[in-house]
Amino acid sequence: MDNFTFYNPTRIHFGRGEIAKITQEIGPEMKVMITYGGGSIKKNGVLEQVKQALKGITFIEFGGIEPNPHYETLLRAIDIVREEKIDFLLAVGGGSVIDGTKFIAAGAKYPGHCWDIIESGGDVVKEALPIGCVLTIAATGSEMNNGASLTRAETNDKVLFISPEVLPRFSILDPETTFSLPANQTGNGVIDAFVHVLEQYITYPVHAKVQDRLAEGLLNTLKEEGPKVLKNPTDYDARANIMWAATMALNGLLKTGIPNDWATHMIGMELTGLYGLDHAQTLTILMPALWKYKKAEKLEKLAQYAANVWGIEEGSDESKADQAIEATIHFFESMGLKTRLSDYDLGSQAITEVVAKLKEHGLTALGEHANIHLDDVEKFMELAL
Amino acid sequence: MDNFTFYNPTRIHFGRGEIAKITQEIGPEMKVMITYGGGSIKKNGVLEQVKQALKGITFIEFGGIEPNPHYETLLRAIDIVREEKIDFLLAVGGGSVIDGTKFIAAGAKYPGHCWDIIESGGDVVKEALPIGCVLTIAATGSEMNNGASLTRAETNDKVLFISPEVLPRFSILDPETTFSLPANQTGNGVIDAFVHVLEQYITYPVHAKVQDRLAEGLLNTLKEEGPKVLKNPTDYDARANIMWAATMALNGLLKTGIPNDWATHMIGMELTGLYGLDHAQTLTILMPALWKYKKAEKLEKLAQYAANVWGIEEGSDESKADQAIEATIHFFESMGLKTRLSDYDLGSQAITEVVAKLKEHGLTALGEHANIHLDDVEKFMELAL
Repeated sequence: MDNFTFYNPTRIHFGRGEIAKITQEIGPEMKVMITYGGGSIKKNGVLEQVKQALKGITFIEFGGIEPNPHYETLLRAIDIVREEKIDFLLAVGGGSVIDGTKFIAAGAKYPGHCWDIIESGGDVVKEALPIGCVLTIAATGSEMNNGASLTRAETNDKVLFISPEVLPRFSILDPETTFSLPANQTGNGVIDAFVHVLEQYITYPVHAKVQDRLAEGLLNTLKEEGPKVLKNPTDYDARANIMWAATMALNGLLKTGIPNDWATHMIGMELTGLYGLDHAQTLTILMPALWKYKKAEKLEKLAQYAANVWGIEEGSDESKADQAIEATIHFFESMGLKTRLSDYDLGSQAITEVVAKLKEHGLTALGEHANIHLDDVEKFMELAL
Repeated sequence: MDNFTFYNPTRIHFGRGEIAKITQEIGPEMKVMITYGGGSIKKNGVLEQVKQALKGITFIEFGGIEPNPHYETLLRAIDIVREEKIDFLLAVGGGSVIDGTKFIAAGAKYPGHCWDIIESGGDVVKEALPIGCVLTIAATGSEMNNGASLTRAETNDKVLFISPEVLPRFSILDPETTFSLPANQTGNGVIDAFVHVLEQYITYPVHAKVQDRLAEGLLNTLKEEGPKVLKNPTDYDARANIMWAATMALNGLLKTGIPNDWATHMIGMELTGLYGLDHAQTLTILMPALWKYKKAEKLEKLAQYAANVWGIEEGSDESKADQAIEATIHFFESMGLKTRLSDYDLGSQAITEVVAKLKEHGLTALGEHANIHLDDVEKFMELAL
């Protein structure tokens, strides 16, 4: 096991009716801005529950945060936060709303040009407004971590920053808020969480048994519960298991003491920035192709994954790895995701453009061995055509 | 899954050489008291490493904290903390030293009689001195939780209190500090952690898959790695896996959203208070007997445990449960623990005395269904004679 530091002070309130706990988390002296996206929280009653819990507290609303939130939109929110002297940001939504809110929180307190936050990867962030979250999509884990990604619409750049200052003070996870999600968002969420685990698991072994068993437990949970909620969207137990698994998949615990890959995510961000593909759509295209390309380096963990997640016990490691890759593709498809660039009418031109964007962003040595260079990206993406 | 709140802000520094990180955790303006036990940290070089990391910081030492730390000893430490105007407590040792230090931290800031802290179960604790830990025995999980137990030597009472104020600010887990542990302390530690998981797992199912898989992962890790370190005490990977498993077993994560038992622990505390048995020794006597007595209520989880930890897949649930209980007893014994009262020359008189102590302490409805009453304790303990 490698050395590590783990620190995560976000308070989680989990379960039915927990939105009411906002009352004990935000003091009456606070002036709050509620941030949200396209307005589904108005239809499903979540916003109403939030407002009930905020009774006696002054608040304003900022809606319209897009999926892959736009830098330009968030700058407008920062202006309002400063004008209105907001003390607390309450994000009500999925990963995009929470990520956007993290940028608002850091930007509102940053004395310089807000793009510096992105340019520095978050290093310039020395303080941020406090954030609380009411999660409505189980997917990104943003409700219990220190990262955020956003899009600069003007230049087709999807970018990210990390700062301990933007760890949410609290997050409320009520599985019932996800009952009304459309099937594609449910599928995207399950797969996003599933791939988060894989990025921290399909690397090479370092004898870290707690982490390996936790990874396999989360994968098995998502694999078993995902199909259930596609069939029955109001299955509380399955929604609850998916929600807690998605949070646990990216709250920092799993990555402790082990190698991490993240090449799929870094390259996927470029696909989203350039062509507007959903985040999960980029992952299911890239990861199987990357695994095929890097099979030798990932062989031991792929074989372990085959056995402990897919029950594939027979054959050589090579054969188990191949079967595990096929099983993964089949699972992605069963959750409604495509796995090829051509499924989105993208061809070799897209590969060229992605590589150019990676170069522009200085991303030239990806993966757990930092040995995936731009020519490797080109080669392995051809396997995803 | 049941509703839950989870909050754990302890920062963990894990791995070889991490004791040096004390420097970045304790500011030079602090006056520190190092607390420790019988002095093994002087022999194995841990105290020297700690002092190196404290260079430039004023500190005093308080040694001699006993296993099952004595209330009377801790009161002496509290007097010194007040006289010397100590700002920070640095516990260097295992669960007893850390638990004792938690009491010192709370007591030093408590304006009333310190026994109130115990009487109230910790409710009266409104503030405490900050605590850091350097863990030297993987066992209790105290390094990342809010509980502590101690002994009032005068009256043979082992008691506990809980308060969020005593959550350590940081804990350093260097597996190498456990290389020199004697076999009995190594075995006790593995079993203590193993039973912590079982208290949160062998109850009844609530469809909480993440928690179940995490529990099984920790049990399998301890089961596989425990025997390795008895054979080879300086096996770093095995020591590391045990250390992280023991911390994860009782940092609050596992108990989220699921029923908890803890009857074995509550009754075991009386056995330690009355007869001085090691904590782990009490657990391995009581738990198998409790399981036999409550087999019908615990049947589903015992059968699941049989399959997912011991690989017992054949037969009825009843038969799987029986085999799992036998496998558990065998594992306890293989780690050097005994499983009967008679192994310690205790008979029915001990049962009578334990029941009287439980009554005195007001513990009359134990277990996940709160249906283990004093007559049940008497009956099931007879199975452990």
